[in-house]
Amino acid sequence: MVTDAPIDLRSDTVTRPTAAMRAAMAEAEVGDDVFGEDPETAALEQEVADLLGCEAGLFTPSGSMANQLGLRLLVGPGEELVADQQAHVVRAELGAAAVFSGITTRTWASDRGRLVAAAVQEIAEPNAGAYSVSTAAIAVENTHNFGGGTVQPLDEVRAVQSYAREHGIALHLDGARLWNAHVASGTPLPELAAGFDTVSVCLSKGLGAPVGSVLVASRERVDAARIWRKRYGGGMRQTGFLAAAGRFALRHHVDRLADDHANARVLAAALDVDPDTVQTNIVFAEVSDPAAFVARAAERGVVLMQLGPRRIRLVTHLDVSREDAVRAAEVLAALPR
Amino acid sequence: MVTDAPIDLRSDTVTRPTAAMRAAMAEAEVGDDVFGEDPETAALEQEVADLLGCEAGLFTPSGSMANQLGLRLLVGPGEELVADQQAHVVRAELGAAAVFSGITTRTWASDRGRLVAAAVQEIAEPNAGAYSVSTAAIAVENTHNFGGGTVQPLDEVRAVQSYAREHGIALHLDGARLWNAHVASGTPLPELAAGFDTVSVCLSKGLGAPVGSVLVASRERVDAARIWRKRYGGGMRQTGFLAAAGRFALRHHVDRLADDHANARVLAAALDVDPDTVQTNIVFAEVSDPAAFVARAAERGVVLMQLGPRRIRLVTHLDVSREDAVRAAEVLAALPR
Amino acid sequence: MVTDAPIDLRSDTVTRPTAAMRAAMAEAEVGDDVFGEDPETAALEQEVADLLGCEAGLFTPSGSMANQLGLRLLVGPGEELVADQQAHVVRAELGAAAVFSGITTRTWASDRGRLVAAAVQEIAEPNAGAYSVSTAAIAVENTHNFGGGTVQPLDEVRAVQSYAREHGIALHLDGARLWNAHVASGTPLPELAAGFDTVSVCLSKGLGAPVGSVLVASRERVDAARIWRKRYGGGMRQTGFLAAAGRFALRHHVDRLADDHANARVLAAALDVDPDTVQTNIVFAEVSDPAAFVARAAERGVVLMQLGPRRIRLVTHLDVSREDAVRAAEVLAALPR
Amino acid sequence: MVTDAPIDLRSDTVTRPTAAMRAAMAEAEVGDDVFGEDPETAALEQEVADLLGCEAGLFTPSGSMANQLGLRLLVGPGEELVADQQAHVVRAELGAAAVFSGITTRTWASDRGRLVAAAVQEIAEPNAGAYSVSTAAIAVENTHNFGGGTVQPLDEVRAVQSYAREHGIALHLDGARLWNAHVASGTPLPELAAGFDTVSVCLSKGLGAPVGSVLVASRERVDAARIWRKRYGGGMRQTGFLAAAGRFALRHHVDRLADDHANARVLAAALDVDPDTVQTNIVFAEVSDPAAFVARAAERGVVLMQLGPRRIRLVTHLDVSREDAVRAAEVLAALPR
Repeated sequence: MVTDAPIDLRSDTVTRPTAAMRAAMAEAEVGDDVFGEDPETAALEQEVADLLGCEAGLFTPSGSMANQLGLRLLVGPGEELVADQQAHVVRAELGAAAVFSGITTRTWASDRGRLVAAAVQEIAEPNAGAYSVSTAAIAVENTHNFGGGTVQPLDEVRAVQSYAREHGIALHLDGARLWNAHVASGTPLPELAAGFDTVSVCLSKGLGAPVGSVLVASRERVDAARIWRKRYGGGMRQTGFLAAAGRFALRHHVDRLADDHANARVLAAALDVDPDTVQTNIVFAEVSDPAAFVARAAERGVVLMQLGPRRIRLVTHLDVSREDAVRAAEVLAALPR
Repeated sequence: MVTDAPIDLRSDTVTRPTAAMRAAMAEAEVGDDVFGEDPETAALEQEVADLLGCEAGLFTPSGSMANQLGLRLLVGPGEELVADQQAHVVRAELGAAAVFSGITTRTWASDRGRLVAAAVQEIAEPNAGAYSVSTAAIAVENTHNFGGGTVQPLDEVRAVQSYAREHGIALHLDGARLWNAHVASGTPLPELAAGFDTVSVCLSKGLGAPVGSVLVASRERVDAARIWRKRYGGGMRQTGFLAAAGRFALRHHVDRLADDHANARVLAAALDVDPDTVQTNIVFAEVSDPAAFVARAAERGVVLMQLGPRRIRLVTHLDVSREDAVRAAEVLAALPR
Repeated sequence: MVTDAPIDLRSDTVTRPTAAMRAAMAEAEVGDDVFGEDPETAALEQEVADLLGCEAGLFTPSGSMANQLGLRLLVGPGEELVADQQAHVVRAELGAAAVFSGITTRTWASDRGRLVAAAVQEIAEPNAGAYSVSTAAIAVENTHNFGGGTVQPLDEVRAVQSYAREHGIALHLDGARLWNAHVASGTPLPELAAGFDTVSVCLSKGLGAPVGSVLVASRERVDAARIWRKRYGGGMRQTGFLAAAGRFALRHHVDRLADDHANARVLAAALDVDPDTVQTNIVFAEVSDPAAFVARAAERGVVLMQLGPRRIRLVTHLDVSREDAVRAAEVLAALPR
Repeated sequence: MVTDAPIDLRSDTVTRPTAAMRAAMAEAEVGDDVFGEDPETAALEQEVADLLGCEAGLFTPSGSMANQLGLRLLVGPGEELVADQQAHVVRAELGAAAVFSGITTRTWASDRGRLVAAAVQEIAEPNAGAYSVSTAAIAVENTHNFGGGTVQPLDEVRAVQSYAREHGIALHLDGARLWNAHVASGTPLPELAAGFDTVSVCLSKGLGAPVGSVLVASRERVDAARIWRKRYGGGMRQTGFLAAAGRFALRHHVDRLADDHANARVLAAALDVDPDTVQTNIVFAEVSDPAAFVARAAERGVVLMQLGPRRIRLVTHLDVSREDAVRAAEVLAALPR
């Protein structure tokens, strides 16, 4: 029997704000953000834009909305977005790009989500004429969630960008976990964001804020995105409470992602996962019966998620301490795989 | 020169949470609401559903999203929604019903947004066959914002519902300010919500919560709306903070709407507006040069909004005290109209 | 007992090509029109454009597609089209503007479809800002089908155009029966088309060609429409056969529409319909039981259509001779109404 | 200098009706097909359905519309269609599935369009739950156009169908050139169509009719498709002329596709293309400078199309005789590659 609180490794979205973050929220000065009058939100948007070396930012209720707003600025109805087969924008946003923006997609296969410029170039069809679909944008996800937290190789990113620029193709960066890529690779955030036309980053995953993402882009694009955000129903009023949590997270929860990465390696070792494939805070492990494995782990106080017919996913985050990781590792190592 | 804080009469969306509401938010227990694990949000959804005599509820980032989710459950792509020419769902949601749900709309003219069953029946075309558009739903707005806070006459609502049921047409209630209709008319909330298939109510207008609306409907419809909410990008994580504010507002800020209504009449009198047209917290007044009028009022500490080429709108709310209303009335009465 | 062939007054779409038209079709020189290589189609497109005083034309499979292509060039997703409540584009194209183009619509009431500039100006909301829907285009239908073949008063058209130009609103003309308006009013076709950004005209209604409409507009708009036509699935190959029929109709079937108009008045008289309301080839008559009336007429060899709970529609066309009209009038006059 | 008519190998859509086909068209009995009253069209629809062993058929202006109608019956908005990266439905229909039906797509890589069941199963995600996109349908193209006229291996088709049935996934067959697959493989048409929920076949490609495709499916699906066809603007009136051409083609132009296939092999040999890759009437050849190659061939009376940065496409059809093929082969063999 387990008496401790369960260790929740399903996702880094489950974190609960710390007391210090709650204090920051409680003191937030707020206004009506639909009228552009919430000071915390405006400050957050500018802070994130500055951190990424971009002009402007827009707070959104979710990472999906930030991605969707970015994509629709880059791709017109009937135009094409190409992406990795396992990209969040094509797998986990319920087809929003098609339904709401009329964006058609084709996808390339990848090894653990790792970007390979040659694969992108093979599938893209820029300026395809009046009879065929033209590729208008390429989506890159860094780190790559369903790829197992993969940090994108910067030289491949640069090669894709060079190709895209040459052919007039736009680029969107799904940077929900860009903070993890930054901490794991040591690459400065502006270098990770450079060369993309729109970038989304999330505050409620590794950073541990309760709600929200930020889309960064040029001022002109952000102004257009603000109108579309209202159309999607994402125009919220006194968002300063949420923005204050985000600003706190930016100041206090970025560097500590290194701990999550170390904890992920502890879990990987317990499951005999190749450590080279665990670059950040996500671990995928193969087991013969994921449903049974998840059930047994839960009985022992470790909560996991099945993702695919033979895979489980483990994600470390703010609410998983080193002790939690070690304890979870012991539990998982002892289970039949 | 004005030294007091400006009195903001632009909209009831500008309210800032009180200290007591902030305290309720600070103590909120939270979880990941995308996984259905935020206790405050679940409690809020059920509370609102119970208040309205409905089965289930869904928290949304905005009233627009609540309306849009409701409408798309009732109207398929290429089917028709009929609404008043000045309804919020056709005027102030940026065409979302068409863009995202493929809903076509026709509209009828009204006097100050007041529902007249005969006008609805004249425009609706149920079961129009394979060559013409069939009316699938009727939208009713209570109170009616651009109509000047009009409370819908219950007998006309019942007549529309009876017609709709007879012809297999669904009904959506945009109840963003249903609380005001309830307080102004004394009609119990369940009677106001009865006979509608989907109902949206807002927490961040008269009730003074910072963010959010609730869609109420049958359990089956709410389950479907939850998936679509994620597709719209409205799936948020630890929403308990926002939900706690909403729950506080439901307990403490409903009955006091009577004060807002009284204050609106004070303002109406100052502008010689027919008091019979001021049923709740919204006042529309005709002025010859709205832009100039708004500018002069602002210089004297009263913030208004122009709505239309000859009209200004004044809205009372939680952050407008009786003293504020009296002072604003004095300022406005003295201005040239 | 009737032994003659039934007289079909349901619609002017039911006409069958004459022997001479068939001969013109049989000799058509054809090519692949998706590649822009069908000579008859190119000639037809230019002929219609020239007739209307416009730059370019595009052949489409139907009037609905011509209208939809025109509208989507003028109105972006989430923008607004305003139209008469009974306009074909909002009543009889199955919501296509919303489903395929994300166009939101509001409608004004009219007397028999007659355009009144003041009504249009009252509903339109140009440049409504970031929070409200902006009117991007106005649709005018000439003649007005469900209004009973009403010819639009030219001074009202000009007043609407003047208002629209002043406020940056575009104008679409649904001219499916513009030929009838031309013949009935004597106004030259270029004057009827002047001041509109996009115009659709139909070849398969009064003109009696088997299939097709033409969208006319600027060269730039027609080029864009050609790509969208393919996206809708309206790119056809050897369309020269159809185009040849259309060209034949333009040469031989325009002036004779005066006969259809005269025949319509014969029918109207038989049903005691106010002759002032019968301007072209469409007659609406009120009867107490339309289904029964239609059935009784059919037994006597006159085929009609019910349109609405108390109305029947009669349409004269190429396949209804003066003798047919007189015979139908006798039959209808004798029926209980 | 070439004095003969150019030999057009760009596409099998360029064929011009023969004198006999024109005669069949000239005698067609016609009616208003929007009202379901065109006898030739009804007969064609039933003939095609019978040929394929299906219940009902629907005539459409193009293969794109037939495909799009089929897909939207199988896949709801926000649901997923998976297809080959080079499938016509994702490459050559201008994103219609996304724009008009809200269908999201992911694609797998193939060798010359050849279906491999394992590849389909790897990418498909049936019943993916509330957070991820669920695969609703799989598209198969037979023969595969951009794959070079590849006939799909029947055992792989059956394996995909078995997998799909097991997981509740629907199947669409883009059979624009199913006639070629039938003639090349000897497999009866009903076997080629069996196991698919919707099938499109084209009359204006190899069969040489001027315009049109037919969607075949269950009666219920065809009835729904008929309404959507009107919404797309594909409701045409007296289509009997086109249908008569299609019926003539079905009687006279199917078996002769064997000649086209033989001619394609003649062309392939001239360009040193592996004959095993030329199964039907399409030849893809690699050349170092396609634009230059196409220009030189055109000077010598052979019209080709560039498709991709290093490829040209040659298509044989009704208007390319054996003599033409031999002459074209001589021209092409002599050009620098």
